[in-house]
Amino acid sequence: MTEDARVDVDFGEDGLVPVVAQSAADGEVLMLAYANEEALDRTLETGEGHYYSRSRDELWHKGASSGHTQTVEAVRVDCDADALLYVVEQEGGACHTGYRSCFHRTVDGETVGERVFDPDEVYD
Amino acid sequence: MTEDARVDVDFGEDGLVPVVAQSAADGEVLMLAYANEEALDRTLETGEGHYYSRSRDELWHKGASSGHTQTVEAVRVDCDADALLYVVEQEGGACHTGYRSCFHRTVDGETVGERVFDPDEVYD
Repeated sequence: MTEDARVDVDFGEDGLVPVVAQSAADGEVLMLAYANEEALDRTLETGEGHYYSRSRDELWHKGASSGHTQTVEAVRVDCDADALLYVVEQEGGACHTGYRSCFHRTVDGETVGERVFDPDEVYD
Repeated sequence: MTEDARVDVDFGEDGLVPVVAQSAADGEVLMLAYANEEALDRTLETGEGHYYSRSRDELWHKGASSGHTQTVEAVRVDCDADALLYVVEQEGGACHTGYRSCFHRTVDGETVGERVFDPDEVYD
């Protein structure tokens, strides 16, 4: 594909688009976060998952502090071009709580996910 | 689990939370949409995927007109309780364009998804 064919992503009024990160290895949905245009550009340029942190209000290179980076195998866009899917190889766990996936609980509060690291040993 | 244990979902300032729908059969990410509290309640009560349509500004029973309903096997919530995951059995295709998944294109514009129905035959 030529660069001209890049889909015109709708970053919305706040400049952000929701991004689903999915494990390339087994399809597990790992997290939902947001990207601005810079984060998408960095992801495509570097092949590592970048987002925009709404809480810190800054570009977020996932795993920069924890080492739990994401190697992005594919970036997909949905039919309305207002949501992205990063298909990734996840180092360690995606969730800051130590679980592989942020979606490690049912809405009834039951833990169903796998804990893969101790956050006390990873974060200061 | 008791009903009391239900996680307190953060519906945000606009009353909506993003929802990822994933195929229970093979893990494919099918779509990203939004739910308000009523949509989540209806999903849990009926076992069929309900969302809130931002374009139509109304409760949206997925597949009510197309027949492409979603039987929801599990509802998960993320660590911050501000995103949901519906694990579903999808009738037909999730995407109104006829593809199984709304994420049927790469961001470079290459079609990678499978078309499973002709929208002209499904929608008026």
